[in-house]
Amino acid sequence: MKTEKINVEDLLEQYRSGWSLEQAFYTNEEVFEAEWKYIFQKHWLFAGNTAQIPKAGDYFLYHLQNDSIIIIRSNKGEVNALYNTCRHRGSAICLNDAGHVAKFICPYHQWVYDKDGTLLNARMMPDDFSKDNYNLRSAHVQVVEGLIFISLADTPPGFSSIQKSLSPFLKPFKINNAKLACIKNYVLRANWKLIAENFRECYHCGGAHPEYCSAVIGANLREETNELTLAKQKQWNEKGLTTTLIEVTEGTTTYAIRYPLRPGVESYSVDGKKVSIPMGMHSDHDAGVVGLVNYPNFWMDAVSDYVWTMKITPINAARTAVEFCWLVDANAAEGKDYTLERLTEFWEITGDQDGKLCENNFKGIQSNAYSPGPYAPVEDQVINFVDWCVEPILSIGV
Amino acid sequence: MKTEKINVEDLLEQYRSGWSLEQAFYTNEEVFEAEWKYIFQKHWLFAGNTAQIPKAGDYFLYHLQNDSIIIIRSNKGEVNALYNTCRHRGSAICLNDAGHVAKFICPYHQWVYDKDGTLLNARMMPDDFSKDNYNLRSAHVQVVEGLIFISLADTPPGFSSIQKSLSPFLKPFKINNAKLACIKNYVLRANWKLIAENFRECYHCGGAHPEYCSAVIGANLREETNELTLAKQKQWNEKGLTTTLIEVTEGTTTYAIRYPLRPGVESYSVDGKKVSIPMGMHSDHDAGVVGLVNYPNFWMDAVSDYVWTMKITPINAARTAVEFCWLVDANAAEGKDYTLERLTEFWEITGDQDGKLCENNFKGIQSNAYSPGPYAPVEDQVINFVDWCVEPILSIGV
Amino acid sequence: MKTEKINVEDLLEQYRSGWSLEQAFYTNEEVFEAEWKYIFQKHWLFAGNTAQIPKAGDYFLYHLQNDSIIIIRSNKGEVNALYNTCRHRGSAICLNDAGHVAKFICPYHQWVYDKDGTLLNARMMPDDFSKDNYNLRSAHVQVVEGLIFISLADTPPGFSSIQKSLSPFLKPFKINNAKLACIKNYVLRANWKLIAENFRECYHCGGAHPEYCSAVIGANLREETNELTLAKQKQWNEKGLTTTLIEVTEGTTTYAIRYPLRPGVESYSVDGKKVSIPMGMHSDHDAGVVGLVNYPNFWMDAVSDYVWTMKITPINAARTAVEFCWLVDANAAEGKDYTLERLTEFWEITGDQDGKLCENNFKGIQSNAYSPGPYAPVEDQVINFVDWCVEPILSIGV
Repeated sequence: MKTEKINVEDLLEQYRSGWSLEQAFYTNEEVFEAEWKYIFQKHWLFAGNTAQIPKAGDYFLYHLQNDSIIIIRSNKGEVNALYNTCRHRGSAICLNDAGHVAKFICPYHQWVYDKDGTLLNARMMPDDFSKDNYNLRSAHVQVVEGLIFISLADTPPGFSSIQKSLSPFLKPFKINNAKLACIKNYVLRANWKLIAENFRECYHCGGAHPEYCSAVIGANLREETNELTLAKQKQWNEKGLTTTLIEVTEGTTTYAIRYPLRPGVESYSVDGKKVSIPMGMHSDHDAGVVGLVNYPNFWMDAVSDYVWTMKITPINAARTAVEFCWLVDANAAEGKDYTLERLTEFWEITGDQDGKLCENNFKGIQSNAYSPGPYAPVEDQVINFVDWCVEPILSIGV
Repeated sequence: MKTEKINVEDLLEQYRSGWSLEQAFYTNEEVFEAEWKYIFQKHWLFAGNTAQIPKAGDYFLYHLQNDSIIIIRSNKGEVNALYNTCRHRGSAICLNDAGHVAKFICPYHQWVYDKDGTLLNARMMPDDFSKDNYNLRSAHVQVVEGLIFISLADTPPGFSSIQKSLSPFLKPFKINNAKLACIKNYVLRANWKLIAENFRECYHCGGAHPEYCSAVIGANLREETNELTLAKQKQWNEKGLTTTLIEVTEGTTTYAIRYPLRPGVESYSVDGKKVSIPMGMHSDHDAGVVGLVNYPNFWMDAVSDYVWTMKITPINAARTAVEFCWLVDANAAEGKDYTLERLTEFWEITGDQDGKLCENNFKGIQSNAYSPGPYAPVEDQVINFVDWCVEPILSIGV
Repeated sequence: MKTEKINVEDLLEQYRSGWSLEQAFYTNEEVFEAEWKYIFQKHWLFAGNTAQIPKAGDYFLYHLQNDSIIIIRSNKGEVNALYNTCRHRGSAICLNDAGHVAKFICPYHQWVYDKDGTLLNARMMPDDFSKDNYNLRSAHVQVVEGLIFISLADTPPGFSSIQKSLSPFLKPFKINNAKLACIKNYVLRANWKLIAENFRECYHCGGAHPEYCSAVIGANLREETNELTLAKQKQWNEKGLTTTLIEVTEGTTTYAIRYPLRPGVESYSVDGKKVSIPMGMHSDHDAGVVGLVNYPNFWMDAVSDYVWTMKITPINAARTAVEFCWLVDANAAEGKDYTLERLTEFWEITGDQDGKLCENNFKGIQSNAYSPGPYAPVEDQVINFVDWCVEPILSIGV
């Protein structure tokens, strides 16, 4: 039963690395709340791309549980993350999910805030009212190239390891200067970890992703790719493209890899042909795939001509919001250099396949007959992720 | 998290009069249950207008949480409030939200009840079955002029103070003989107190209500109105219209005021012109505005030619049902003396503006960044209301 | 309030046989969970009819709470009940509510299972992986004539009493060889026990079921039927049709009866005329009505030319899924021997009437004004059912 009380300590004692988690880890709201507290309110969360807010005053909202965070570009070009809650009586001050403002005027009693959250005016308040005490609250922000990360923690963990891991892979795409082509949002009926697990193994690819396997050699786990990979790595390095594999280890959260597309394939597309002009510093369609992960909520796959980011935001134990974002080169012109249909088709198809797999996985896990099963050896990165999720809860002894 | 246990005592210790309430007072279901018990199940609740049930046997249902109360006019013209629950196996006996009956026949096993709840017939029950023990249960009812109040308490508080406060303001409208023109129902995604708070201050009016500020001088808090008010009060008193301000004080629940419309404005209407014939004893469109409040759920604004009532019914901590009712003079003929469009336009616009403000207020309050903020001096009546809400819970020490 | 904690022991102490249950028995999720555990996870549950899966590999899903059970016919013609949860990472393996398979291939990582749940293949698992340990989990199954019962218990109660009670009534219909004509599903906003109670008394029939009372003499409880019944029983016995009343007593769960239709009425139909050819061994339309019940979730009414089964599956305390199934003779041809419209009309009308009664009953029971009421003497079978429901919880002392 969903309302049944669970003992998190007992659960954790049953935890065996290499096996999928006990049912309650995927379905119980108490566990979810612990995860929210010890994972999501602690770590750096991917919030979006600077391409979403090219000009000062541009903003978008990031909804996390009951919070909405205004991600806004300041006059100096910096990115701020402000809690969307008036310091007077708490009204949401920013009502649209994205837009542009000169200042924020609370719709309720017209208190006025600057782009950095400074309270500029609070009419009719008494003389002893000190405006300085009533600026909008803010979250921590870090931007690596064009990727915006926020932390809801009072004291966030260091960002340098993430910065150092992601930056070399991101630079060639110049995504801090990229063009936002498309954003799509989905809600999946699945625990957020199942979506993350899904993205960390290709054991399912051969059966579930014909388009992906057409584009990526070896994704079906049946083709030998060592020789090709070594040859491509040599070429990439000559062009100054990093190929250094980054793995998630104790104390880090980032995974990064570059791997080849099938020979003759130019992009992540259904027909294998390019979908836009090369991005940033790229001069051809031969940069392979850059796959980036940052636990707990960031996934990205980029090919020479476009970047696709994926933001995972849990709603509750049983529902997860997913945002896909497609970026192209700053100079790519829609209609001429790319069409939205061709640009988005590949990940819409593949993402839809993955979404259904995750929802079916969640359905079956809810059964009384479910018990942890053994991961296959090729699912080793899933084990890495699951261990990472359980560890903070284990060590804190919730 | 919504399921997080809260300590109501701790919450109350943190309460500071003059500051908006701690988040849990607006969002937590435990607090809501305490409010339901100590406020809604104790006090007199506005249920509707006698104009809704002009003839004996006319009824409407008032839905409160899991209860539905049948408000019905008896053969003697009295108003009864009956719980809509058969004494046999508990079936709802009255299935429509409003209508007319000679008797109630339970749809399940046809037990028959009179308009006052008396069990008239229970077929096939054994000889020792005593019908007298199985009348429908009833709630307490009081009618002041045409306003129907009920109490779900075993022993309701006295009604005389409410009667005495409201009666002089109501009498000139003859609303016990008025005509029901229109009823509209809304559900707001906001805690019920935010709706009540909204109605007790005009700090927001200047920015949010252009139509209202056009009709009511001073509503923007920028115009001087003392001189006009004194002059109008003199005129009103000469016509026998009360102008005695009633404030909510220790042990009372009623607020009543008469204030002037902007010179030249005849009614609450978008163009400032009258919308119907003068109501009841009024012979002109110059009676100003009568504003009445009875904690916790009754609000009313009346002008010379129509009465608008507002009934607030909490559904849970996060949802509130609101009912608007428009009454006109008994002799007003639709199409000739008034049209529904002009009659309802002003409060539909203003009510919609307020509804959105309340919903946005509730959104922002749910944030982790929310903390109580200072009310402005012009929000003193909100403080009065909030103190009133917290007091019973404080004194009982839930 | 729904979230209010209840004390099941206190509730049980208040229980008085002969009176409807305390509110919490119908509305509280804790009570519901106890019922799920001590009634639904213990007893034999009607799952469906073998006519739904005539060929090897035919299957349908039975959804119970978070479980979905695959009811499938094996190559040997046996019926298996398999939990729809892959032993690898828990994915649902069967995604359609009914269909036909040669084998089950999990959509996630393509593990392959046979029709009896045997794991046939798990690709890329290590050498020491023992397939034998990873067959699909199964539930117990029993088939009496064509009725499929399952038990979710580790050690289910004996089935012989059910078998012995139902078999003589079922045999003449040959429903193990019948044709599935139609299945319809409904969700009622009512506690499951109210639906069961409704089916165990005809106190409501006279007022609520004009069509049913037209077909069944005495259903209105006003007509004398003893003489007719005795005469018909004699005829039925001469034809070898059993008329032995089976009642639910201590330790049993089955009720069975045969009673006459109104003279001149051939079938359960609105006009009283037959709707199909006689089923199985019947050679005329004069077998009366066979009414079968098995606590907690099986109800069936059969006439000479069709069988109608009803499966009740609680969703939570406040919602219940109901499935109606119509079976006709194996040789009945749609369009020629019967039409779906005429076949289903009678129970769709009567079932819809009952559904509304149950939903209204549940509405009224949720009121604070509800308290247990006295069952009428003609509701004695309801008392039998209610006692049966309360007994296991009483004896276990939840």
